[in-house]
Amino acid sequence: MGPDPLDVSIVGGSGYAGGELLRILLRHPRVRVKQVTSNRCAGQPVAVLHPNLRGLKPLSFVRVDDLEPCDLLFLALPNGASMHDMDGWMAKAPKIIDLGADFRLRDKDHWKRWYGSEHARPDLLSRFVYGVPEIHEDEIRQANYVAGPGCEAIVSILSLFPLVKHRLLKPSPIIIDAKMGSSQAGRTPSESSHHPERAGAVRSYKPTGHRHAAEIGQELGGLCPNLSLHISATAIEMVRGLLVTIHAFLDDPETDEKDIWKAYRREYGGKPFVRIVKQNQGLYRFPEPKILQGTNHCEIGFEKESAGGRLVVLGAIDNLVKGTAGNAVQCLNLMSGFPETEGLDFPGLHPV
Amino acid sequence: MGPDPLDVSIVGGSGYAGGELLRILLRHPRVRVKQVTSNRCAGQPVAVLHPNLRGLKPLSFVRVDDLEPCDLLFLALPNGASMHDMDGWMAKAPKIIDLGADFRLRDKDHWKRWYGSEHARPDLLSRFVYGVPEIHEDEIRQANYVAGPGCEAIVSILSLFPLVKHRLLKPSPIIIDAKMGSSQAGRTPSESSHHPERAGAVRSYKPTGHRHAAEIGQELGGLCPNLSLHISATAIEMVRGLLVTIHAFLDDPETDEKDIWKAYRREYGGKPFVRIVKQNQGLYRFPEPKILQGTNHCEIGFEKESAGGRLVVLGAIDNLVKGTAGNAVQCLNLMSGFPETEGLDFPGLHPV
Amino acid sequence: MGPDPLDVSIVGGSGYAGGELLRILLRHPRVRVKQVTSNRCAGQPVAVLHPNLRGLKPLSFVRVDDLEPCDLLFLALPNGASMHDMDGWMAKAPKIIDLGADFRLRDKDHWKRWYGSEHARPDLLSRFVYGVPEIHEDEIRQANYVAGPGCEAIVSILSLFPLVKHRLLKPSPIIIDAKMGSSQAGRTPSESSHHPERAGAVRSYKPTGHRHAAEIGQELGGLCPNLSLHISATAIEMVRGLLVTIHAFLDDPETDEKDIWKAYRREYGGKPFVRIVKQNQGLYRFPEPKILQGTNHCEIGFEKESAGGRLVVLGAIDNLVKGTAGNAVQCLNLMSGFPETEGLDFPGLHPV
Amino acid sequence: MGPDPLDVSIVGGSGYAGGELLRILLRHPRVRVKQVTSNRCAGQPVAVLHPNLRGLKPLSFVRVDDLEPCDLLFLALPNGASMHDMDGWMAKAPKIIDLGADFRLRDKDHWKRWYGSEHARPDLLSRFVYGVPEIHEDEIRQANYVAGPGCEAIVSILSLFPLVKHRLLKPSPIIIDAKMGSSQAGRTPSESSHHPERAGAVRSYKPTGHRHAAEIGQELGGLCPNLSLHISATAIEMVRGLLVTIHAFLDDPETDEKDIWKAYRREYGGKPFVRIVKQNQGLYRFPEPKILQGTNHCEIGFEKESAGGRLVVLGAIDNLVKGTAGNAVQCLNLMSGFPETEGLDFPGLHPV
Repeated sequence: MGPDPLDVSIVGGSGYAGGELLRILLRHPRVRVKQVTSNRCAGQPVAVLHPNLRGLKPLSFVRVDDLEPCDLLFLALPNGASMHDMDGWMAKAPKIIDLGADFRLRDKDHWKRWYGSEHARPDLLSRFVYGVPEIHEDEIRQANYVAGPGCEAIVSILSLFPLVKHRLLKPSPIIIDAKMGSSQAGRTPSESSHHPERAGAVRSYKPTGHRHAAEIGQELGGLCPNLSLHISATAIEMVRGLLVTIHAFLDDPETDEKDIWKAYRREYGGKPFVRIVKQNQGLYRFPEPKILQGTNHCEIGFEKESAGGRLVVLGAIDNLVKGTAGNAVQCLNLMSGFPETEGLDFPGLHPV
Repeated sequence: MGPDPLDVSIVGGSGYAGGELLRILLRHPRVRVKQVTSNRCAGQPVAVLHPNLRGLKPLSFVRVDDLEPCDLLFLALPNGASMHDMDGWMAKAPKIIDLGADFRLRDKDHWKRWYGSEHARPDLLSRFVYGVPEIHEDEIRQANYVAGPGCEAIVSILSLFPLVKHRLLKPSPIIIDAKMGSSQAGRTPSESSHHPERAGAVRSYKPTGHRHAAEIGQELGGLCPNLSLHISATAIEMVRGLLVTIHAFLDDPETDEKDIWKAYRREYGGKPFVRIVKQNQGLYRFPEPKILQGTNHCEIGFEKESAGGRLVVLGAIDNLVKGTAGNAVQCLNLMSGFPETEGLDFPGLHPV
Repeated sequence: MGPDPLDVSIVGGSGYAGGELLRILLRHPRVRVKQVTSNRCAGQPVAVLHPNLRGLKPLSFVRVDDLEPCDLLFLALPNGASMHDMDGWMAKAPKIIDLGADFRLRDKDHWKRWYGSEHARPDLLSRFVYGVPEIHEDEIRQANYVAGPGCEAIVSILSLFPLVKHRLLKPSPIIIDAKMGSSQAGRTPSESSHHPERAGAVRSYKPTGHRHAAEIGQELGGLCPNLSLHISATAIEMVRGLLVTIHAFLDDPETDEKDIWKAYRREYGGKPFVRIVKQNQGLYRFPEPKILQGTNHCEIGFEKESAGGRLVVLGAIDNLVKGTAGNAVQCLNLMSGFPETEGLDFPGLHPV
Repeated sequence: MGPDPLDVSIVGGSGYAGGELLRILLRHPRVRVKQVTSNRCAGQPVAVLHPNLRGLKPLSFVRVDDLEPCDLLFLALPNGASMHDMDGWMAKAPKIIDLGADFRLRDKDHWKRWYGSEHARPDLLSRFVYGVPEIHEDEIRQANYVAGPGCEAIVSILSLFPLVKHRLLKPSPIIIDAKMGSSQAGRTPSESSHHPERAGAVRSYKPTGHRHAAEIGQELGGLCPNLSLHISATAIEMVRGLLVTIHAFLDDPETDEKDIWKAYRREYGGKPFVRIVKQNQGLYRFPEPKILQGTNHCEIGFEKESAGGRLVVLGAIDNLVKGTAGNAVQCLNLMSGFPETEGLDFPGLHPV
């Protein structure tokens, strides 16, 4: 490695997204992790909270007040927390990747409608690029500020984008039935995350009204004005992982599976982290989050119903990697001129 | 107990449905289990295959050739196996409950289309009553021959019947997204049931083309001619249990949740095994298969989307009880003039 | 049922032991559940916390101050909580079964050593019978006050008692390696019970210093003065269930497995809830907590090492049933002159 | 990378150990995977069986008859299979690492006693080095032939070696209570691996008579002649991972935990893959296989009982990595003069 590494700090490093950023960045060949903040755990080694990191590198949490300037800052804070201090964050680093929801929506009224409060910094909304590298690569390369998508949002957007763009689907209805793991709800214990209650649950946690519909609509709505999206999310026995089963209808019921293939190939042909999975042998014929744990891949598959024109699209990711931290590092790579896959080459485990 | 108990035998007692029948029937106060057949395990105590029964009652498998006459015969055989010997079964018992698929469809052409072979006994199709006690109680009380529904079918039918009957839904599309456990695939080991592969899987096992669509269409299609049903089934980490997330659209988007409640109340008011679940507190606000393990309950819940008219209906059962063996015993109770709930009063465990 | 039912109340009904008592008692043919207290949840239906009970019987929590006199009182409180108010409890009911640890040890110094505080009521210690019905049946039948054993304690005591009594084992060392589920830690969420952390864990939660050693020593030490017991407990992926793998050494290495059998048969011959499991076919050759969920059975098995005289004894229970609530109801049955198995006949599920 | 990569082939690449070798070797900077054999799957892409490898590199299985010469050959065959063709394997490659049991024991009588057949090539037993790099580093560096240890063996040996070497333990008894995952039983489906049976099991699969006792005795017996080792293995709900809870007794009960630390430090001070874990804060105070999935680490911890001199030693690994494939690549690195950690730097995931 010739040049100086990029100095990167993480605000809010005690959560699962922060831990996953650390796992990836501590082994990223062009990055130096400068600081990780956690007011609650200041002074403690990061490995107390992220035990997979023990022995990797001595690093302890610092208070957020002790944050120093750096080249790029990750914000891994609860929704609604980053926008209030954005001037402060911007003073610390020329580039920011925010993993929370605050700067995902471009319309402050959408924010209010879905998150229930006035947006604190509507003036900054247009300065953040929505961080889907497979769709906004050029903008991300130029960007100083990137908003990382929600995990249901990114997997749904990647699964639907080529089909919507090429007008293969009827705009209504498109139903996203998401199956999610427990890590998505974050690190704070609650009755609903208590193991005896959560283990083996098939909990209809959000049958309607899922906030990520706003992001997906923003990304895909421009391609197809009358798009009508519906999300239901079910929490299942799983820690990491997310599968969306998308039920949609072909605009032309005669469209065949080869045409679907072509649309995906055209959009994702050279994309290193999108994998179209539709095998006719083996147990893993469709996308499977189980084998994606720890990887930055998004697997996409589909099956057309023999009659009636329904197309079932399947999208799978690790919610903490392609759904959060890995995708953010992919954005960092683009923003910094590094190879897109740097630090993100873990292929996943099987069986697991 | 005054009168003689009912003598009941089970053909195909080595599988999970057979074991569950035994668990229920061996403690049913009005039933005596006479024989249980399994050619492969003849001579072995039933507790070798069904270890929960050890110590309960000495009973060993017999060969099917040794089957004696009895009052009521359960057939717990693979799909397509019972129809070939139906004359023989009928000679053994005046009443038969078939847990397999052979006599569920009234139209032999539907059988051929969904099961891929000619039906061996189309002449008998009309003699079997489709065994949903909550809908066909009177017919089942009079019936000598009952066909037990498929597990995805019965939970979907119970979830949709009042809404379709009262014309609350648009007939198209109705999408059933089923989350299923591993016991549904039966007792025979295979690569797909191998623990390292199946554990933690979120396997899109039947994105389209699920056979139970035929049964559901048969039951509900008469109430609403243009019904368009679509099923996708995903195998998740669970042994017992089934949740269907049904995405449908209200015929009149102004229909409110109270109207939905009323329709369910009207149809299921006095039904002992249907529970409408829609709580505003606690962790179990919607139907949850986790707490139904071992019970004959079907829990049904719903949530209306704030805009767009989507209604999400949730239905949960234990696939081996209300989905198979328990529902069959409920039919036996009706066919025999016993109280409907006899032998089926286990309330389920929590936590589990 | 001829005579009036027994009026039973539960103090501390919001926890898992309380819920399990309710599940059993609400269907017990000779018991009427009069009141269930929970200050935190007063006024709420019990089914909000114990969802398996929904639809079973309308019953709401009351404040402990509203407790009325009854025939028998269950105390299901945290360790150290019942002793302070014992006069009050005794004023409410002539018979008490305490599920907590407060009155398990007869020696107040043992209490202090293991629980770290002075015992509040050493004068009452001798009035409580230690509730292992298989060993203290006659005393329990006469008792007004019973202390329910700890779950590791009861399964270990039942597994070892015949061997110690008949002097088949060397007194030292006897090592109890316990594998436990998450429900044992109770209902209160914590970092350690948070699903992403607890799921899939193999956590050495108590390698040494397990408190239940005190109870086991008290029960077995009288039979064999130099007994040296060691416990280690590991939390594994399981909600309900407990297996102890006990490593002991035969006093006479020539003792064969038949002699072991005989000792168990002699002590447990007519006991309805102890099952000696040692099969030479099938998958469930040894005790297995998986199939005991919801049952009051204790399964015991063993295998002698071909050389060296080690005997491995295996004991399995459902920690919430034979380990807590079911065993307490078994004591109630004895104390009340009911059949020992009343209300406790659920045989368990398979597969599950 | 200057010099030519090492050409490596794998015999028996369809199993889980073979898949794990591929995962590691396909990304090893100094290795080129030349061929992978599987007669059953010849012609199929490796990703059909190892779906985590899809997209990684096009590679298909070849028949074993088509095996070509290479620099180093891995044998990943069932126990007892490699020895019969050893001349053939030796003709293909100057260096061999056998992952099976055939060449682990130096004494052919031990082989016969534990594996039940005559050893086919006792003449070669002394030519294989037993592959524990932390103990036999120098021999492995010089070796042409290495036998990879069994997974229970290597974690037990690493956990006990410093304590036995420094005479800190009484030689008898030492009891190894192993908790194992389902991947250890390999890829072939069976009744015992059928998900409904295996899920949630706490199966006493080998209470006595575990074969790995032979290897452990061979390694440690030389350091302490009267060593008496006992193993019991319990299969728990887990796919990957192995924890051994070792119950031993201190030779001098006054030995304190610092002395234990010192012994471990002395032996494993500079060893990259052994981690002594004994924290006084956090949830992961002791070794935990959950966070080791995919890593080559062996975590070792311990706790001394307050009285009686018992020392509980805990050892955790991923059975497919440090227990099999990763450890074998570590041996390859030593045999080839590569850095010991090359290709083995994955730190593991949390939460998972």
